[in-house]
Amino acid sequence: MPRGKFISKSEILDLLSAINPDSNISVYIQLENLIRFGIASGTLAPNDQLPPARDLADRLGINMNTVSKAYRDLVVMGLLTTKRGLGVFIKEGVVEQCREVSRKTVLRHFFEASAEAKISGFSADELRVILERIYANEVYPYGAIPSSIIPDVQ
Amino acid sequence: MPRGKFISKSEILDLLSAINPDSNISVYIQLENLIRFGIASGTLAPNDQLPPARDLADRLGINMNTVSKAYRDLVVMGLLTTKRGLGVFIKEGVVEQCREVSRKTVLRHFFEASAEAKISGFSADELRVILERIYANEVYPYGAIPSSIIPDVQ
Repeated sequence: MPRGKFISKSEILDLLSAINPDSNISVYIQLENLIRFGIASGTLAPNDQLPPARDLADRLGINMNTVSKAYRDLVVMGLLTTKRGLGVFIKEGVVEQCREVSRKTVLRHFFEASAEAKISGFSADELRVILERIYANEVYPYGAIPSSIIPDVQ
Repeated sequence: MPRGKFISKSEILDLLSAINPDSNISVYIQLENLIRFGIASGTLAPNDQLPPARDLADRLGINMNTVSKAYRDLVVMGLLTTKRGLGVFIKEGVVEQCREVSRKTVLRHFFEASAEAKISGFSADELRVILERIYANEVYPYGAIPSSIIPDVQ
């Protein structure tokens, strides 16, 4: 099906492999976020097919029910659609909605984290340096923090 | 008791009033964070007395058990101490530990939020502007976001 930007199945698997079972954010929430942020940024596009829950679960070393729950939630929210016998696809016409929801979720999270840093004594400069490094490197929000970005924090 | 920086009971109440029952972060976690960040930044100091759980619960309009749970957790973690018949106090010798734990918690949170913003399509400049505004204004991490900081996000 037509789309502006091609992404292979293996690239989608790579994108979704950025989840971290050891994070304090539930794995199904991480998956939902990665799919929503991927659509918002254009990395994922309408009509892209998601990997079968079993394949993704095997690749990530997590329970298949966790993947199914994330997919089911996103179907209920209207972002994904199931085509019987074919699999799970990103629905058409959801980009604007994803951008809007991601914007709110992400900015709320960024505000909270920056304000926590401020009241616990960090300077604006310290945060600016970390921000620069995050934009200069490849990052996975839920994974280990590379020591080139923040030393001594995992 | 001696301390470098005096803080009145009403100021402590003000600090802890920054919790937001509508946040998606549990109220007892917000309270624990505010106390830990307060100690890390020097706003709260060893031997400061915390408000009785009932007073704080009344002021915040929350259940007394929630406040008691936060106090109890922090006693178990060794940050607070109970003096029988007197109340709950910040323990001596905990500043370093609070700084260390806060640093990890806060930087992990900041990394996650910034990386989420990056992969969902925000530019580094957009985040830098928000960061500047957060440092130029009084902020409460778990409260509503002032529209002067981020318009249209609550």
